[in-house]
Parts: sequence; structure tokens; C-alpha cells
Amino acid sequence: MPFFKFEIIHQSKKSRARVGRLHTPHGIIDTPNFVGVGTNGTLKALDNKTVHEIGLQLMFCNTYHLMLQPGTEIIKQAGGIHSFANRTMPIITDSGGFQVFSLAYGGVASEIKSKGTKKRDGSVLKITEDGVTFRSYRDGQKILLTPERSIQAQKDIGADIMISFDELPPYHISPRKLKESFERTHRWEERSLNEHLKNVNNQALYAVIHGGIDPELRKKSCEILTNMPFDGYSIGGSVGKNLQEMIIMLEATMPHLPTEKPNHLLGIGDIASLEASIPLGIDTFDSSHPTKAARHGLLFTKKGTVRIVKSGNATQLRPIEDDCTCFTCQNYTLAYLCHLFKANELTAFTLATIHNLHFMVQLMKNYREQILRDQV
Amino acid sequence: MPFFKFEIIHQSKKSRARVGRLHTPHGIIDTPNFVGVGTNGTLKALDNKTVHEIGLQLMFCNTYHLMLQPGTEIIKQAGGIHSFANRTMPIITDSGGFQVFSLAYGGVASEIKSKGTKKRDGSVLKITEDGVTFRSYRDGQKILLTPERSIQAQKDIGADIMISFDELPPYHISPRKLKESFERTHRWEERSLNEHLKNVNNQALYAVIHGGIDPELRKKSCEILTNMPFDGYSIGGSVGKNLQEMIIMLEATMPHLPTEKPNHLLGIGDIASLEASIPLGIDTFDSSHPTKAARHGLLFTKKGTVRIVKSGNATQLRPIEDDCTCFTCQNYTLAYLCHLFKANELTAFTLATIHNLHFMVQLMKNYREQILRDQV
Repeated sequence: MPFFKFEIIHQSKKSRARVGRLHTPHGIIDTPNFVGVGTNGTLKALDNKTVHEIGLQLMFCNTYHLMLQPGTEIIKQAGGIHSFANRTMPIITDSGGFQVFSLAYGGVASEIKSKGTKKRDGSVLKITEDGVTFRSYRDGQKILLTPERSIQAQKDIGADIMISFDELPPYHISPRKLKESFERTHRWEERSLNEHLKNVNNQALYAVIHGGIDPELRKKSCEILTNMPFDGYSIGGSVGKNLQEMIIMLEATMPHLPTEKPNHLLGIGDIASLEASIPLGIDTFDSSHPTKAARHGLLFTKKGTVRIVKSGNATQLRPIEDDCTCFTCQNYTLAYLCHLFKANELTAFTLATIHNLHFMVQLMKNYREQILRDQV
Repeated sequence: MPFFKFEIIHQSKKSRARVGRLHTPHGIIDTPNFVGVGTNGTLKALDNKTVHEIGLQLMFCNTYHLMLQPGTEIIKQAGGIHSFANRTMPIITDSGGFQVFSLAYGGVASEIKSKGTKKRDGSVLKITEDGVTFRSYRDGQKILLTPERSIQAQKDIGADIMISFDELPPYHISPRKLKESFERTHRWEERSLNEHLKNVNNQALYAVIHGGIDPELRKKSCEILTNMPFDGYSIGGSVGKNLQEMIIMLEATMPHLPTEKPNHLLGIGDIASLEASIPLGIDTFDSSHPTKAARHGLLFTKKGTVRIVKSGNATQLRPIEDDCTCFTCQNYTLAYLCHLFKANELTAFTLATIHNLHFMVQLMKNYREQILRDQV
């Protein structure tokens, strides 16, 4: 049996949505599914045993951060990230490229808002055909990241799914520069694949579909990359400045991806985006939104987001949601959580994160059930 | 059967140390024991179910903090602090007095170090026979705290053990002022007891023995307070500026306390102090030291304290202690914990706190076993 296999359980009759099952060396990921972000090998404010209990099937770790701290050598020595972080369920890593560019631009949203006036902060020193040279935010060291080095780092980390090394062009870019970046990115992805195939190591490799919000470029990217033996396809680059642009882009892209292979939408996981893109056939989504929102006291419920420190909650001696089966709702009340947030107790972050993550796991389970009934 | 009972299991033949069992409405506290500090109704970075699993039998909550946030009304409505915070094991509350004075002096250690030059910061507005008027650090509101109000607040909170309202005289104080404070404190304690006896409510009340480092005053305080029907005796006020002064004070005090009643040493819980004062017959100790140390990356081991971010730990793929049975040591390595601390992950605080608290629980268990064998 192959170490990585994607099974389609049901194709909705109503949309491109499908229920699938990704088999990996560390177990199954039911799709569509939400992928929690555990940048440094842990979801913020939770430990991996707790995450296991919540049932989050796939965790996203960031190669860029792990390369700089603790370094990939100790992770390799530990036998890979699963053993190092004591997570028995599947893990996906990115290539590091996104963070190098994103930190330089001050984040995707910030770059979009700046209308192109926000320039690199000096941490990206040089982009050549070989790769990108950047300065470590930890110790100022110069680091050259190439497709080959990214894949080697991801091999040391040992995630079940890796992502090929790409360039993240800013949203505001001239057509000539975009074309240059587009062509280079696809050469980098091919080099990533070649490096990966030297030593597959029971890991899967996803390509990154590029082309910004240009439907022709997205189509071309799909054509180039689906002609190479990648295990799956992630959708990256600029996905537009709002939900509408993203949906238009996905509608132009998805028909050009092979339905028999899994796909992943990079860095998107807010509830509105999930609702809009699951019918377009997206299998997995990663986002730090649910965990970050939790630490800001924003709790997800079926009736919408609740701001925990809102005055009314201080006297509510009931759980966040009466029928919620998460550890937090089973043990603590809104009044107590509100108190912990107001008293700045770290415990509040943990309990809120457990709730939001559980919410996401249940939400995706509900989507899968709806797709099985052709309701989505 | 009475709701509160102290049983002496064994009196050491070697010292005043004894093994006891405190029966409370929320279960047994084996003594001597360490009391974790959960100021706001939670141990920092842990939730109460986790604390339960670690086996911490008594948690110390601060009435001053709970009065200001969330207020005692909602705790009372919830059915008391056990229900509000979902802790099923015993809880002890202080009177609020310590914090009013301590925050005003900028903390006990700080006041001692200042050699009396550190004055009140303006939050204590007035001390009269009635009580102390102070300004809330939360909203600037003027609050009058009296013995009666402290007991009423502690009734609303509903801890198993309460502490009578006292004045904390600074370490640097004139003999005349100390005498005034000493006499007023004992009148306040008697008023606390009278208020308590109006409605015992299955709660026990401990007196606070005062007298600073003056052996005669300590003796006198014992004489006054042991003539009143308190359920136990805590040792408070200034306990000296170092361990040696504290031991001299305890040696002068302990023989004047009735052996058949439980006692508690307020705010002391570092390992050296425990070792020195258990043979003097102290039953319980509270301190935020183990949990605070954990958040600063200081981990307790049988060989002493380990600074987690020390370079050697980054490559140690073994637990903090090989034979430790805590959740952290059973699941994570020094290298991973070191990484989490360096990456500023909140998870690090939780895992380190679990370890240190488990260490304290085991340490006290070992002390009890040694006393049973007359080795302490």
C-alpha cells in the first residue's frame, strides 16, 4: 500500500465539493478539513496531547521558523517533528518561502492595504535564480534559501506533506515583474520536486499554483504543474484582496486541477471563506485565525462570534454553547471565562483556544456530512 | 461528623514534624502539604481539571483580587468558588488585608529591601479602628475593608478555610506603631471570629499569629488567639528578612500553638524554607514560587533548579527528569521545552508549571513518608 493515498468518498451532486480521505504515514485526514497552525511545532496555548484529544487531524508547521529555532538538525536527531513535538497525527510544512517574503512585506494584508507603497524591510537581501538570501530575524545571520535547501529542511523536519519552494510576489507588482516571478517560481517548484524525488522518505509534496488574480496565469500554472508528478496542489500567491476576488480566482483555477489529487488553499480559514470555497472543491485549509481569535477573546458559536469580555457574559453561569462537547464548555462557564480574560490569566487563552479549535473540527465534520447528503 | 477535623496520624520522634489529615467539605488535605496559589481562582497557565490530575490538595485564592474581579456576588450566585472555578478539591482564601497592605508597600521583599524608605503608594487611604480604606487598582473606586466585610466576602466565596482580617505592619516600623498595629490586629481578628460564628456555613477560620520577629510579641499573639475558638492558626505578619530570622521566629512561636490544631505558614514555599520549617511542625505552606519559577523557565529537579533555556538543554532528547511521572516529563523532552521557551510559546508556561507543581506534590508526599519513619 502506498504511504500517501487520496480516496474520494463522495462527489457532491450539487457542487464541486467532495468528501475524501487522505491516507498518510501518521493516519487519515478526512476532507474537507481545517488545518490548525502550529508554527513552532505547537498550537499556541495548547500542547499536542490536548490537540490530539480535540481531534485536529492535520497541523501546519512553518519551516522558516523551525529552521531558525530550534534548527532542523535537532528535529532530525529526534526522529522528525512528530517525535520532537510528540504529535502522532499528520503534519504539513510549508517551504519557508512564504514567510521570507511575507515578513519582508509586513504580511500579505498589510502589503495589499499599502497599495504597493510598503516596500521590503531589508530582511530579503537578494533574489536570484538560485534562491533568496535573507537576514534571520533571530540573530541577523545571512541565510540563502533555495528550492533544494527548503526541501532538505522539510526532509529533516519530516512532515507527512511538504510544499515546494516558491516566490510570493506582492499584490502590487508590474506585469513584467509578475511574469518574471511567475516563471522563476515554476522553475523553483520543478527543482523542489527533483530534490524531493531523490529521497521520497514517505513524504508527499504539493505544488503551489500561482498566477495572482489573473485567470490566464492561474490556468497556465495549473497546466505546468499538473504535468509534473506532484502528490497534490496547493493554491498560493496572492489570492485577491477580498473574498469576492478569491472566489473568482478559485472558479478560474479549480477546473484545471486534477480531481483525483488533493488540493489545499494556503493561509485561508475564516468561516466565510470556508463556506464559499468548499463548494468549489477545496480539500484542506490552514489558518491561524481560530487560535488567534481565541487569544483575543473571540469565541466561535453557531450563532456567530462572541466577544467574551462583553459585559453580559460576566454573569452567564452557562457554557459558551449549551450543546458544545468541548473540554471548555464541559467544565467552565462564560462567567468564569470572562473573569479569566479580565484578570489576564493565561488559562483563558488555553480554554478559549480549545473551544475554537473544537468548533472548527465540528464545523468541518458537519460540512462533510452535508456533502455526503449532496446539500453542499 | 464535623465538617472540619484535623487528625494527627503520626508525631515524629525526631522533631516537631507531624503527619496529619485535614478533613474538609471538599475532601482531605494530607499534611504537611504545599498549597498552590490560584489568586484569581486558577493556577496561572493551568486549568482546575489539570490541577486536579496533578493532585494539588489545597489551592489558595486571594479575596482582595476576587472582590475586585469578578466580584463576590457572581461567585456566590454560582454557588461558591468551587462551583464557579470548577474545582472539587479544598480551597483556602486569605482575608484581603495582606494584599491591601502588600500592594501599597510594593510587596514584602521590596519593603524589606527599601529599609523603610519605600512608602505607601497612596492606594491605602486610611487605617482606622473600623478597618482600612483603599483605592481599587482596577477602577480607582474607594473601598472600606473591615473584618466583618472580609468575612462576608469570604462567606460569599465559600472556601473551606478562611483567614481572619489582620493588618500587615511593615518590617520597618517604630516600636510604638508596631504595638498599636499589634493590638488593633488582634481586635480585628476577634471581630472576624465573631462575624464568622454568626454563620459558620461549613467553613473553618484560621487566626493569623502576629508579632513580627519579636519572640515576646509572637508568644503574646499565640496566647491571645489560642484563647479564642479558631479552627487553626496561620503565621503571618513579617516573618523576618531571611530564612534564619524566620526559623528563629518559628522556634519561638510554634511551642505556643496547640498541637491538636492545624497551622499554616503564610506566603512561604521555597524548598529551603520547607526543609527548615517542616521539622518545626508547620502543616501547610502557600507560595506562588513554584508556578512563577516555571513561567520564568526554572524547573525543579531532585538535583536542584534547571534553567530551561541554558544552551545544553536544546539538544537533550530526554525528559526534565528521567523518573518523573508528570504529564510534561511523560510526553515532552528538555529540547522541546527549551525550544518552546525560546520561541515564546505560551505552551511552555503550561508544561513547565505542570512539572513544578507535580514536583511540589511529590516532595510533600516524600516528606510525609519520611516523618512516618521518624527521619524528619
